[in-house]
Amino acid sequence: MKPEEKIEKITEGIRNWFAANGPAADAVVGISGGKDSSIVAALLVRALGRDRVVGVMMPDGVQPDLEDSRRLCEFLGIRSYVVNIGGAVSGLKAGLAEGTDLELSRDAGINMPPRIRMATLYAVAQCLPNGGRVANTCNYSEDYVGYSTKYGDAAGDFAVVSNLTVTEVLEIGDALGLPAELVHKTPSDGLSGLSDEDKLGFTYAALDRYIRTGVCEDEAVRKKIDHLHDVNLHKLRTIPVVADLS
Amino acid sequence: MKPEEKIEKITEGIRNWFAANGPAADAVVGISGGKDSSIVAALLVRALGRDRVVGVMMPDGVQPDLEDSRRLCEFLGIRSYVVNIGGAVSGLKAGLAEGTDLELSRDAGINMPPRIRMATLYAVAQCLPNGGRVANTCNYSEDYVGYSTKYGDAAGDFAVVSNLTVTEVLEIGDALGLPAELVHKTPSDGLSGLSDEDKLGFTYAALDRYIRTGVCEDEAVRKKIDHLHDVNLHKLRTIPVVADLS
Repeated sequence: MKPEEKIEKITEGIRNWFAANGPAADAVVGISGGKDSSIVAALLVRALGRDRVVGVMMPDGVQPDLEDSRRLCEFLGIRSYVVNIGGAVSGLKAGLAEGTDLELSRDAGINMPPRIRMATLYAVAQCLPNGGRVANTCNYSEDYVGYSTKYGDAAGDFAVVSNLTVTEVLEIGDALGLPAELVHKTPSDGLSGLSDEDKLGFTYAALDRYIRTGVCEDEAVRKKIDHLHDVNLHKLRTIPVVADLS
Repeated sequence: MKPEEKIEKITEGIRNWFAANGPAADAVVGISGGKDSSIVAALLVRALGRDRVVGVMMPDGVQPDLEDSRRLCEFLGIRSYVVNIGGAVSGLKAGLAEGTDLELSRDAGINMPPRIRMATLYAVAQCLPNGGRVANTCNYSEDYVGYSTKYGDAAGDFAVVSNLTVTEVLEIGDALGLPAELVHKTPSDGLSGLSDEDKLGFTYAALDRYIRTGVCEDEAVRKKIDHLHDVNLHKLRTIPVVADLS
């Protein structure tokens, strides 16, 4: 399927989903300044019109690339808010420091902001006069290896590009005519100073090829992908109940 | 199946789940002072031993019945923390007030604390030296009518009583020998001043009977239950993707 065909199908899919699950509601999308949220926002505008899309920028204190997010919202002509989550994050850290004897771990520090962002997006959605539905912006490549925060950026009411690899998402971004410097910006979490690919230890090109063709010449990379996939599958599933009592 | 048999199966189920998904990890459970979290905590202690269960009390500012939660933790002999989420909640509200022109809606105010509690439980789990797995404490009756906050108390890594009605959960609490005043406390959200049953508009007895037998003599109540079930099913499902692109 060509990118243009995919865009048509996704546009129709967004319209159908909203017709069934929120005919008057706005779409709420967290805008990070990266490719996924930019492309999802653009697809939402295409499907629903710019008046029904609300972009929410959520810096944690200072965010160096906030300007990219602003430019995207201006480019799309959508309503946008900047909600700084710094106060909520530091409030939660203070609560933990006061109430526990635990040292904040690296992982806890990395996953807390995405969870506060989820709470922020739902709060915005619940405050909109016509109601809102929160868009999930994860792509298939990241979901495949669990590169997301459970109940953080992995949350949402509907997913737009979760069945498209990074390669395919980028093709759609180009076909949509989005600014190349947003679509092709090196993806990073904005936290560790490393790119996503540095952190994962393999390229999206290798991952996407493996996902779509099953081929991965580097045995160590293949094993790593398989392992990440297995241990992160829980993020994509409903909560398991421990005992069958029927 | 008798309550005692269910307890055996759940105990075994918890052990099996942890053996497969966190053999060294502790169980982390939010303790609200109500029946569900009390009974789930007791079942976790039975399965894993009290050294592997961490109870987290999360008042939002002042919580009148915090003493009930403390008593439960003492009764079970588990490690416990009191993490006040008030700072995080007010930090998020301040961020929203500063960054948007939106008025905080009633629903947004009700669902924000449970989402911050979810973030708190995961932060605690990620800071424990042996790692942690977060228990979901929802019961089947509440899940059936969607009486939970999506990505809030509806979250978790594993569910313990999500296939048991309120009636059945109470039987288990009694069979476990938990203090009757905790097990049979009138359930409420601690926010609205109303009991859960007042808010739902029907009794758990009527709901549980309908769930288990399909019988509900009051047609208006039946319709209400069916409606709540339908519109809340999304809370129990994985995120739908808008378009099939295969």
